[in-house]
Order: sequence, then structure tokens, then C-alpha cells
Amino acid sequence: MPVGTQATVKGITKSQLVDSGAQIILGNTYHLGLRPGKERVAELGGLHRFMNWERPILTDSGGFQIFSLAGLAKVTEEGVTFKSHLDGSMIHLRPEDSIAIQQALGSDIAMVLDHLVALPSPVEVAQEACQRSIRWAKRCKEFATRTDQALFAIVQGGLDEKLRVSCAEQLIEIGFEGYAVGGLSVGEPPQEMVRILDCTCPALPVDKPRYLMGVGRPIDLLEGIARGVDMFDCVMPTRNGRNALAFTANGPLRLRNLCHADDTRPLEDDCPCPACLHSRAYLRHLFITQEMLGPILLSIHNLTFYHRLMEKARQQIEQGTFAEFLDQQRSMLQSDDS
Amino acid sequence: MPVGTQATVKGITKSQLVDSGAQIILGNTYHLGLRPGKERVAELGGLHRFMNWERPILTDSGGFQIFSLAGLAKVTEEGVTFKSHLDGSMIHLRPEDSIAIQQALGSDIAMVLDHLVALPSPVEVAQEACQRSIRWAKRCKEFATRTDQALFAIVQGGLDEKLRVSCAEQLIEIGFEGYAVGGLSVGEPPQEMVRILDCTCPALPVDKPRYLMGVGRPIDLLEGIARGVDMFDCVMPTRNGRNALAFTANGPLRLRNLCHADDTRPLEDDCPCPACLHSRAYLRHLFITQEMLGPILLSIHNLTFYHRLMEKARQQIEQGTFAEFLDQQRSMLQSDDS
Repeated sequence: MPVGTQATVKGITKSQLVDSGAQIILGNTYHLGLRPGKERVAELGGLHRFMNWERPILTDSGGFQIFSLAGLAKVTEEGVTFKSHLDGSMIHLRPEDSIAIQQALGSDIAMVLDHLVALPSPVEVAQEACQRSIRWAKRCKEFATRTDQALFAIVQGGLDEKLRVSCAEQLIEIGFEGYAVGGLSVGEPPQEMVRILDCTCPALPVDKPRYLMGVGRPIDLLEGIARGVDMFDCVMPTRNGRNALAFTANGPLRLRNLCHADDTRPLEDDCPCPACLHSRAYLRHLFITQEMLGPILLSIHNLTFYHRLMEKARQQIEQGTFAEFLDQQRSMLQSDDS
Repeated sequence: MPVGTQATVKGITKSQLVDSGAQIILGNTYHLGLRPGKERVAELGGLHRFMNWERPILTDSGGFQIFSLAGLAKVTEEGVTFKSHLDGSMIHLRPEDSIAIQQALGSDIAMVLDHLVALPSPVEVAQEACQRSIRWAKRCKEFATRTDQALFAIVQGGLDEKLRVSCAEQLIEIGFEGYAVGGLSVGEPPQEMVRILDCTCPALPVDKPRYLMGVGRPIDLLEGIARGVDMFDCVMPTRNGRNALAFTANGPLRLRNLCHADDTRPLEDDCPCPACLHSRAYLRHLFITQEMLGPILLSIHNLTFYHRLMEKARQQIEQGTFAEFLDQQRSMLQSDDS
């Protein structure tokens, strides 16, 4: 899912987004709740109509942004109080408020509000936040009324395997239409993420979608798929694209580098995206001269790359050759720490 | 002609540019000569291939940028010495150098290097610059060797009617494939521009293209057409678009204004551009949240608006109703001083 924080995937028109292969996008409840506000979006016909996107939209709950962007988040059992990053005003958000916003936005998939803690945290802190998240998830489910909106729960529990499994079991007991794995890709080493997926995914129902939140690098998505994850969201293709990093099947390219100055090759020979109509030399020129078209074209290329990678993964699964494909990709998609 | 200063019309892909109705674009010799440099563009196959634009390209001579962007421009009969706006290095550019750069870029239409003076200037200053520009134009013609590149001269002469006519006559005597009217739309009142066109255009050959440089507002283009101008270039549709101003048949709209916050109408009902798939409320949201998509969509809309206006003007000319059309447009396209 490309990330469309403020009702737009940054710099990309609707038709470019469709052409990149996007089947579903993510919108941010925190941002949209602040601007233009849930009432305005609802009056304008909901988020789909507002941004002219007919395909599915998933909205997050705002939890991640409250604990990362907003200031002074203070959690009680009732909800979370935080300072708007826009004007410093104090905002109180209960799990029910998050669902109310998401219902007004009219997304196809809503996420429960959860309580995030920084990694690493003492196990008691992780445990308390986890138990509160489960109680909040239950309140979200009880509050939600839209029959055309699926509600996904979020498995938390930090890097503690027992806590993760226990959280998953309690959420399944409540019953949701999908299950997300949250609180990963927040700075921990990649092998820690894999370890938590190895213990969490077997605890999740096989007949419900699994969503790994905020992940990640191309290889991380494939490692997630190997463990049964179905859905991902990440700003990496677009944010890195804006910063002159292009993903390719042979590893990432940094387009500002001098080595591309006379390179007539496209980013990828077989890529159908509009960036690949141009030479690497031209794309570098756009970044060196700080032209908007550079970030635009690389964002489109990177989204196209991610969508094509997911398409290949689906084909490999259908052909029964995913394990070999993953091994091959582990060596080809060179590590990128950007 | 949309302005593609640095081998890109800011924020717009090639297919969006084609869809907006662009038949020809302008590239800037000054900028491209500095970055990526004429040798690099030539090695990469010329400007068309570099920016992946197969339709015609006109390149200016660099004169306007030297006298506006660069520092400390010093003119001698030989040429002009100026300070690069990028790194402060001193650059010497003769008329022959400008043609050499434009030949390396491989544009379809090259412009002669001219000597610009600020308006208002004493008539002696304007006269001297004008006579030097004519001598430089002759040197450009003698130097130019590409048979696949047309060379246009530039009529200067400030706001002095006699000087304009005399300049036109001397340039026609040398003989060029097209004639531009330069040094207008640099801050003088619109009626001054019209006065100069009224005296200059009748002095130009009827069988050669006439190009009014750097103009302008929609109504200015129509006033130019009424006086026999065939070609225009201006940053106004794209620069104003980036600054939240949308041109419409009923006058300009400033999209940041609160009055658009709940407006479900598109910018123009009958416009086929991608911005007009959205509501004014959504476009305002993009500008209020400083999203890249706002400048992108409004640039595309404004280019589409200009190209559609030119298309309408052509139809009116063919139908013999241009005079009535112009009268009507004078009242509809409300004055915009942005």
C-alpha cells in the first residue's frame, strides 16, 4: 500500500498511481483528522471521493503518528491526550474517536487505536501497553457500526515472543476481520523483525488477512511474505524516491552520484514506468538542478518496482518456487540502510 | 510554449505535457549551458532525446537570463561577460557562443543573442543596445550552420516606436526564418505593450512566424494574436500554478482562499485536465497542507487552459469571428496582476 498521508500519495496523480500497479492505498487518520477534518471530508463525500480514488483505502488509527509526530502524548485508560504538531493545541483521542474519524473518512479497512511504546522497553511496560491495546481494540469493535468497513486489530508486544503470541490469542478471541503486526520496523535489527514474525504469524488465523505495518525494504516484504504476511504499507518507495534513491532488481541506485552523469541507461531495462523512458543521466540532472520532476519520477518508479516485486512474489507462490525466489532475492536486493 | 527551463517543465511528465496540448516547448540556453552543459547534452543525443520530447523545441539565446539572473553583466561589442548565478564564476558569452550552445542542444528554433536594457531607459541607451543587437544578430546568422535549425531574430527598441520599426527593417534586411518581439512584459503597463505591437507587427513580413517573448496573461496573448503574433512563451501558467493560482474562463481563482474549502465544483466544468477530476475543496487542501500534488495539478490545469484558449482563438480566426471573441474575452478574463 502506497502511503497517502494527507489524501495524496506525494507528487503523484491518480492515473500515475493506478499505472504504478496500486490496488489499495493507505490514508492517515491523524493527519486527515486535523486537516481538513472528518466533518469536511464526510461532507465532501468521504475520502474516496475527496481524493478521487475508487479503489480500496486502509486508514490507520492515528496511534503511530500520535506517538511519533505529536508532542507530549499522555495515555490513560480512557485514551490519549497529545499536542497537535500543527498548532500545539491539546487533543484528546479515545479509541472510539479514532473509529468515528475513520467511519467519517469512509475507508474500506479501519485500524484499531493502539498504545505504542518505544523499543527497547522493559517487559512490564510493553506488557501494560499491550494489555491496554487489547482493551482498546475491544472498545473499537464495540463502537464500530459501518457494515461496509472492515476492522483490523493490531498485535503488539514489542520484541517479547510470549507477549506477542498472547496478544494475538486475545485479539482473535475478540474477533476481527484482519490482523496487523505493529510496533516493528521502528529501529530494531531486521533479524529481530523476522524473529517476531516467526512466532506471531503461526498464532494468526490462516483465513484472515495479515498486515505488517510500516515495513519496509523490498527484502523485508519478501521475508514477511515467506512468513505468511499478506499486506504491507511503507513510505520507503516514495520518501526514498524524493531523496534520489531508486530501487532496482540489482539493488538501489543513488541518482545524485556522479557515476550516473553520462549514463544513457534507464533505471531498469524492463520497467514500464515513466521514469524509465529517461536516461539515468537525465534523472540525475533533475536532482542536481532540484527540479520537482526528479522526486516525482523516482517516486513513481519505486512504487512500480514494489508493485512489480509483489506481482513476482505472487507468481512464484503460485508456481511453488517462492523459496528459491527468496534466496535469489536475498543476494540481489543488496542491503540498503537508507 | 510552456517553459522548460532546465530540460523539464517544472513538475510535469512528458505525457502530461502532451495531454495538456503542448505542441512546442521552450528550453533555456543559459541554464542548460551551465547545467548539464552543452557537451553533455550533445553526447546524450541532444535536448530532445535528453528530456524525451519529440515535438519541437525553441531555445532562447540566454540574453534575458544574463541580464536578469546573472550578476554584473558587462557588455562589449565582442559579447557579454557575467557572473554565473550558480557558483559566481565569470563567463564570457559571444553571440557565436550562444549559437554554438543552441546547436549542441539541437533545438528546432534558435534565437539570436541580444543586448537587453532595462525599461525605462534613455533613448540613446536603447538605441545603442538596439544597434548592437542587430550587429550581433548578423554574427549569429553568419555563424549558424545547422540546416535543421531555424534562426529567429529579436526586434528590440524599448518603448520607442521609431526605434522598433527601424530595428525590424534592419533585421529583415539581414533575413531570418522568424522574428521575435523582445524586451516587453518587463514591467511596463499592458497598453504600452499593445502600442509597441501596433507599430512593430506591421513592419514584419506576413509569411514568417512572429513570436512575442515572455508574454503573458491570457488576455495579453489574445491582444498579441489580434496584432498578428503567432507564438508566445511564458512561465505564468506554471509559476502561477505552483503558487495556487488557477486560470479559468471566468477569471483566475486563488486556491488557498477559504471560500474554496467546501466547494465541490471542479476549476472548470468542461476542462479535460487531471486537476478538474477533483473538487476545488481538494485542490485547496493540497495547497494548505503544502502537498506537491497541488502545484503539479494547477500547473497542468493552467497549461491546459492556455492551450485551449489558443485553440479557441484559432477556431475564431477561421470562422472570421475573432474580433467579437476578443471583445468578449476582455471582459471575462478579469485583470490579474499576479
